[in-house]
Amino acid sequence: MQNREIIKLAVDTVRTLSMDGVQKANSGHPGAPMALAPAAYVLYRNIMKHHPKNPLWMNRDRFILSNGHASMLQYSILHLCGYDLKLEDLKKFRQWESKTPGHPEHNVTPGVEITTGPLGQGFMTAVGMAMAEAHLSAKYNQPDLKIIDHHTFVFCSDGDLMEGASHEAASLAGHLGLGKLIYLYDDNHITIEGSTDLAFSEDVEMRFNAYGWQVINLGEAGNDVDQIENAFHQAKSELGRPSLIILRTHIGYGSPNFQDTAEAHGSPLGYEEIKLTKQVYQWPSEEPFYVPDEVRAHMNITERANQQFENWSKIYGNYRSQYPELFDQLESALSQKLPQQWHEKLPAFTPADGPMATRAVNSKVLNSISDTIPWLMGGSADLEPSTKTAMKGKAHFTKKDYGGRNIAWGIREMAMCAACSGMSLHGGIRPYAATFFVFTDYARAAIRLAALMELPVIYVMTHDSIGLGEDGPTHQPVEHLAALRAMPNLTIIRPADANETVRAWRVALERTSGPTMLVLSRQNLPVLDQSELGSCEGLDRGAYILSKEKAATPDVILIATGSEVSLVLEAQKQLSNKNINARVVSMPSWELFEEQDKTYQNTVLPPNIIARVSVEAAATFGWHKWIGSHGKAIGLDHFGASAPTKNFTNILVLQSIRSSRK
Amino acid sequence: MQNREIIKLAVDTVRTLSMDGVQKANSGHPGAPMALAPAAYVLYRNIMKHHPKNPLWMNRDRFILSNGHASMLQYSILHLCGYDLKLEDLKKFRQWESKTPGHPEHNVTPGVEITTGPLGQGFMTAVGMAMAEAHLSAKYNQPDLKIIDHHTFVFCSDGDLMEGASHEAASLAGHLGLGKLIYLYDDNHITIEGSTDLAFSEDVEMRFNAYGWQVINLGEAGNDVDQIENAFHQAKSELGRPSLIILRTHIGYGSPNFQDTAEAHGSPLGYEEIKLTKQVYQWPSEEPFYVPDEVRAHMNITERANQQFENWSKIYGNYRSQYPELFDQLESALSQKLPQQWHEKLPAFTPADGPMATRAVNSKVLNSISDTIPWLMGGSADLEPSTKTAMKGKAHFTKKDYGGRNIAWGIREMAMCAACSGMSLHGGIRPYAATFFVFTDYARAAIRLAALMELPVIYVMTHDSIGLGEDGPTHQPVEHLAALRAMPNLTIIRPADANETVRAWRVALERTSGPTMLVLSRQNLPVLDQSELGSCEGLDRGAYILSKEKAATPDVILIATGSEVSLVLEAQKQLSNKNINARVVSMPSWELFEEQDKTYQNTVLPPNIIARVSVEAAATFGWHKWIGSHGKAIGLDHFGASAPTKNFTNILVLQSIRSSRK
Repeated sequence: MQNREIIKLAVDTVRTLSMDGVQKANSGHPGAPMALAPAAYVLYRNIMKHHPKNPLWMNRDRFILSNGHASMLQYSILHLCGYDLKLEDLKKFRQWESKTPGHPEHNVTPGVEITTGPLGQGFMTAVGMAMAEAHLSAKYNQPDLKIIDHHTFVFCSDGDLMEGASHEAASLAGHLGLGKLIYLYDDNHITIEGSTDLAFSEDVEMRFNAYGWQVINLGEAGNDVDQIENAFHQAKSELGRPSLIILRTHIGYGSPNFQDTAEAHGSPLGYEEIKLTKQVYQWPSEEPFYVPDEVRAHMNITERANQQFENWSKIYGNYRSQYPELFDQLESALSQKLPQQWHEKLPAFTPADGPMATRAVNSKVLNSISDTIPWLMGGSADLEPSTKTAMKGKAHFTKKDYGGRNIAWGIREMAMCAACSGMSLHGGIRPYAATFFVFTDYARAAIRLAALMELPVIYVMTHDSIGLGEDGPTHQPVEHLAALRAMPNLTIIRPADANETVRAWRVALERTSGPTMLVLSRQNLPVLDQSELGSCEGLDRGAYILSKEKAATPDVILIATGSEVSLVLEAQKQLSNKNINARVVSMPSWELFEEQDKTYQNTVLPPNIIARVSVEAAATFGWHKWIGSHGKAIGLDHFGASAPTKNFTNILVLQSIRSSRK
Repeated sequence: MQNREIIKLAVDTVRTLSMDGVQKANSGHPGAPMALAPAAYVLYRNIMKHHPKNPLWMNRDRFILSNGHASMLQYSILHLCGYDLKLEDLKKFRQWESKTPGHPEHNVTPGVEITTGPLGQGFMTAVGMAMAEAHLSAKYNQPDLKIIDHHTFVFCSDGDLMEGASHEAASLAGHLGLGKLIYLYDDNHITIEGSTDLAFSEDVEMRFNAYGWQVINLGEAGNDVDQIENAFHQAKSELGRPSLIILRTHIGYGSPNFQDTAEAHGSPLGYEEIKLTKQVYQWPSEEPFYVPDEVRAHMNITERANQQFENWSKIYGNYRSQYPELFDQLESALSQKLPQQWHEKLPAFTPADGPMATRAVNSKVLNSISDTIPWLMGGSADLEPSTKTAMKGKAHFTKKDYGGRNIAWGIREMAMCAACSGMSLHGGIRPYAATFFVFTDYARAAIRLAALMELPVIYVMTHDSIGLGEDGPTHQPVEHLAALRAMPNLTIIRPADANETVRAWRVALERTSGPTMLVLSRQNLPVLDQSELGSCEGLDRGAYILSKEKAATPDVILIATGSEVSLVLEAQKQLSNKNINARVVSMPSWELFEEQDKTYQNTVLPPNIIARVSVEAAATFGWHKWIGSHGKAIGLDHFGASAPTKNFTNILVLQSIRSSRK
């Protein structure tokens, strides 16, 4: 068979598998896979360094399908390349517990790096992957031994480019000059509502030039595998800028009735149309999911992959002998195994240290471990002087020094969080992201994906309540604790003082099964006296008895988090003067408390004590779970106001009066 | 006094007032006001059509300070122009209950159009204002009588331009060719972390050219009032494109020690530095908040404003006589007064109509009122075929036809929501925004501001649970109901069937004190039989007895919302077979129920009935408030999965089993 013929056959196999998969599921998106099949073919067969039998090979090229709805494209090509994804799996597309869910999912399908679907997310996350590669290369590679040297490839769509996400990520990637980041834009002129003309007429080429990218505009070359291949080579040869390949494609390519229409986007073509389309392709079989033997042979890249892997293994072996310390460090970074006794340098505080903001403590903690955990990397969305999240004495990660570990993200909260996910997905880095707590609103879509992927990213969110004062209601989080506590897989910790903040970092660093968010105060908080009160180690269990009642059983339980814990300790004293025995429970993390067994939970919150009061400078939403039907939740169920912090307690009291009047 | 001299004096007055205001508050942002004072002077004194004594004049030019932290700039200039903002008010900057909060706030300060502060938000919202102006002009103006004809001016900063928000809004504004939208970019090269070089190196001029904007790059002209004025004229003369004026300024201008440094951004300069800076200005007084008399005289624009207002009033008077029907319609639109009997054409449904998705009902409702309420305007973020939110037979709002009322927002959820706020702020339009419920995550920062400003925007959010099926966990909202219920001022309604959906629209349209979000199903739901069950009018009160127990008191109360209501009706039957008398409560809106008096609440949920079960295909977070300590919440406290909807009930049951095992 001629080369041209087998290529066409292979490309059409991707197309027909995708059409058939969507049709069998009776749900999904056939159009984009049909348009992008040639590009996927070129990338997976001829360009990418990957190993179907060893899909987690550290030095593989990464591929991100940012237009995740085109998932059948990726499943089809992974199957043909020999990944552990059978034809049977393709036939279970979008079915309960299959390996081929509706959108690509991390940890579900071999060869799928990342969960995508919400547009713009893959686009942003890939930037973090390329940052990780750049950083690890700079840190570990030796002139003779390049153990980390790979590319990050992204397919994206109009939808990605319309989302604000793409702007934040592209502007950042251009600024950082990430030359090993290569995007292909599926310029198919169609969105769900119809022609892109309806809503989208920007000059994408000019826009990405403005970001400092190399733009390769191929025009009408959707089926020209040579041009596509050349474009990837040109992109790879550009070392100092990310590349965007613009490829005009035709959605639903080959479908006589639906090509270039919105109808091809999100619904099965129908059996009749599939038949007609296969005729257009001159497809050799009427059988659905048919894969010609010669295509299987042609797509078998095992030999090349083995060769690449062996070459790299030799280099890595030499590296191990010549640079054993770096090797060990890198392996620790990859496994995220904390050094033994890593916590020895953590600070500890006593009341004599005076009151301090938990954001300030955060800075001390971070700087106490920045040498011990050299794979810790992060920064703030242009709020470092306020979030206090710099690792002092460490360089910035810049175009000129990818070895730096402090990251100036710019005012790009969502890209920051998504890129942290990308660094985590890449491996070898423990990322943290910082901004004001209220601005989690900007990053929520990215935080949700980190939670869904169970990535151990650490979010450091400061200025955590109306206690921030004068900046006013736009900057004062009220509903954010509740809104984020409601998110599955996300652990939130709002420490009450300096020592709880230290403990919170321990918990965060030791957790590997999902993101942890530290919620920290702007204002100073007294250091709780552990010689009299419960130990901050109680934080590990989410809630603990901080100050016991002075009687066999408490008359009332006061539950608080963060900055309100010292307030309820004061309340406990005042109640004591009235012969009311109150217990004070510090409850920095609902999620950690929920992980405890019922016995422990009942020890802290005995079911028979129904007089309970929660105090938190935030929406009371959700607190009834802990205070029960007879409890009282003191909080703030309206927006805050611009005023100095001295009004802070006033506002809480005001709210309490308001709610008691109801 | 020479013209040059008085101009300099006026500009420096803005600067010194801003410095002094921040210093007195001991908190705030002096640097940007000092840099932008000349531009603000030119705009407010020479360019803008506005009326200090009549700040809500319908045909005024709008001004949006997107870099809201520069609030003292706006307060200072408003004071000088004669708005109802006294020197005393400036002295109360950032104080409890003052008219000069930390960031500009809607409805607090005369002359402040909008709450800003979170970067990018003002930038986006302004696009909606300009859309409103374009729409109302197209609809109401007559060749001889231009009753609506004004500009929208925006000041923005590096931060705005880094946020993804600016991309969505700028791309949209360029696409729509909004020629009356004029932005000035304060290109001061400084962000909080230091030089913008740290994180921001895109070519802004090229980027906005790519969006189809006119870009006027003034370069080093921050103090050149003539150049700035000419640029505004040039911008106004461009009718078919939005304009961006790029102005290189110097943050903290004139401060010997802090000009061009991050230190000038977010802290008071200090008394000593203020003294030195005033010396640089050759400022005539050492008194803080000093306003030279000649500046007051110079800034008095009353005569011009009166003239402009009178001219317009004449035109509007003529319009009233010549086009009484249009006049009445416009006045109704501006006052948002619903036509009498507006709800007469609303559909009603019976079980015989068969099951239908509440998103499909939404389409019927919308189309039943689209003629009656001609100021209803909205659309979807490229999901119209799924959200079903088009007004049929109505034109699209496009560059060629601003009279259209259907809006193709593109895949820009945040810009859509913010622009809806802008349309609402402008007045004359009742906007709605639609997308999948899960994508509220993208728009949350904009939705929050709508809630904070109490704008009556309607959000139509479909595909409201795992019930959407195959698209999988990235598209299945789980925590979103809780996350949005926690937000103050936002009313959420999740109707159980077709008739509740109709009722939900009634409530939404009649509410004027904050946004309402309708949360609608993808899947079909049976129409509840009102001949046997409680009337859907109960929705108005948030929760109501849908199906009464068959005994004096219920053994158990089953509470559900949306698609789960019909499930619990079925459960009620099954329980009845076991001689358990269950009450079924439909609870479409927690917020509406919370507005009811205690008597009504206790009628629906009698306190003595503690056996309560809530069923909602979402996180159980928050439900304990309603079910109490002894209740059971059935829901989904983990992410969903990609599978056909037939697995929907399975997943809920699975979850129930999992939670009962705990």
